[in-house]
Amino acid sequence: MRLRGRKGIREALEGQPELVILEPEQFKGRWSEVFGNDRPIHVELGMGKGQFISQLSALNPQINYIGIDMYDELIRRGSEKAQLSREEHGGDLSNLRLVRYNIESIENVFDSRELERIYLNFSDPWPKKKHARRRLTHANFVNKYQEILNENGEIHFKTDSRSLFEFSLNSFADLGLRMRNISLDLHAEELRTDLVMTEYETKFSQKGMPIHRLEVVIGEHVLAEHLEQLKKQM
Amino acid sequence: MRLRGRKGIREALEGQPELVILEPEQFKGRWSEVFGNDRPIHVELGMGKGQFISQLSALNPQINYIGIDMYDELIRRGSEKAQLSREEHGGDLSNLRLVRYNIESIENVFDSRELERIYLNFSDPWPKKKHARRRLTHANFVNKYQEILNENGEIHFKTDSRSLFEFSLNSFADLGLRMRNISLDLHAEELRTDLVMTEYETKFSQKGMPIHRLEVVIGEHVLAEHLEQLKKQM
Ligand SMILES: C[S@@+](CC[C@H](N)C(=O)[O-])C[C@H]1O[C@@H](n2cnc3c(N)ncnc32)[C@H](O)[C@@H]1O
Ligand SMILES: C[S@@+](CC[C@H](N)C(=O)[O-])C[C@H]1O[C@@H](n2cnc3c(N)ncnc32)[C@H](O)[C@@H]1O
Repeated sequence: MRLRGRKGIREALEGQPELVILEPEQFKGRWSEVFGNDRPIHVELGMGKGQFISQLSALNPQINYIGIDMYDELIRRGSEKAQLSREEHGGDLSNLRLVRYNIESIENVFDSRELERIYLNFSDPWPKKKHARRRLTHANFVNKYQEILNENGEIHFKTDSRSLFEFSLNSFADLGLRMRNISLDLHAEELRTDLVMTEYETKFSQKGMPIHRLEVVIGEHVLAEHLEQLKKQM
Repeated sequence: MRLRGRKGIREALEGQPELVILEPEQFKGRWSEVFGNDRPIHVELGMGKGQFISQLSALNPQINYIGIDMYDELIRRGSEKAQLSREEHGGDLSNLRLVRYNIESIENVFDSRELERIYLNFSDPWPKKKHARRRLTHANFVNKYQEILNENGEIHFKTDSRSLFEFSLNSFADLGLRMRNISLDLHAEELRTDLVMTEYETKFSQKGMPIHRLEVVIGEHVLAEHLEQLKKQM
């Protein structure tokens, strides 16, 4: 019989150190060592049960993936999903890590320019104005993302929440960041089977709710290009 | 009995040269002379029946307004609306002109930096991809707007069309333009009585459809500020 209590979950997580990382701060600046190679690192912040990151990491062995959430139980379910994804798609789990951590202190886990991409999928909308600072696209968070992303850095953001998407558009625009591929109804024209879906995405798009999506490009090559264009306009 | 035929409409329009302008190209670079003062000029492209521009111009006598559409019949209805708005709000029509013109050649009507603001309200969505170039927020149009707007230039865009709004967000973003006050449901939180409504807006928001809105800021002061910020990041 599998142990289901709090203590049982923790023991299960501690028993798979090659996949699950409970104290990630020690690896700040050393994630390439953790993976044993210099491939780009893509992170999902708030991975939930881990369907998205498990499938994506199975499909793209040349990229290293880290899924982060703050609850033991979700990390446990994530590790089960990860095993299942490998049974389905093949490959091993060497390009995936599941990290239990509170994103609020993300700067203590990743060094400047250590990441190539951040995925934010169906982040909690925190609809009340007084909770705006908890939204993962608040300027306070985005400034941290800019720091830990490298010269090819991108943020890929998906949500069903119109109010969070609106807030995020303004947040990125106010920071002067470059957006692209903005979609107000991702699955409208055709079901985008090329895009790996998250748990929330599957649920909401089955109900016919529109999914909003955008990419932010914050790499220096874009800044340089942008600078040229601005100079020409002045 | 009022004349209703094509010829009757044309005669009615020709009878009010102080309000209606049928051959606007002659005034390119001379709109301040037309208004008899140097106040900022705000233009609505595709004004329809003119409710928005009539009311706005009645409320703001310190701004000069030009409403443009390409159909005689709409200009005629616009001139009626304008009279009514003055009966309601007071004031005279000296800060308003109604112009019959095809926006495709807008650069032949306004000189470089002659305008301070362009309103695009419920522009035709042209949903088919092959008609994308007809959308008033297509890069070909926006490039013209950038040319005729001055150092305080802004574009204020409202629409009920999700697909046109999505297209426009990408169009502005791809041109590197700065957006702000992006709203995916303008009248959601409170009915914005501070904002003058258009005919289409009244109709669609009464049906409970969300109205999308954004502002684009293309003045040089913004470019300069932006440039500073980019330099710091590099
Ligand atoms: C609404 S769920 C979305 C899950 C998944 N991305 C999906 O699309 O199905 C948001 C997730 O973010 C996690 N989360 C929210 N705030 C967090 C924080 N500060 N640190 C770590 N995880 C957080 C929650 O625990 C939850 O699992
Ligand atoms: C959907 S209506 C919106 C009218 C009004 N702005 C409103 O919100 O109620 C679009 C208007 O744009 C005008 N229009 C579209 N393309 C135009 C063009 N190329 N030149 C001038 N007017 C145009 C149409 O004649 C029509 O009156």
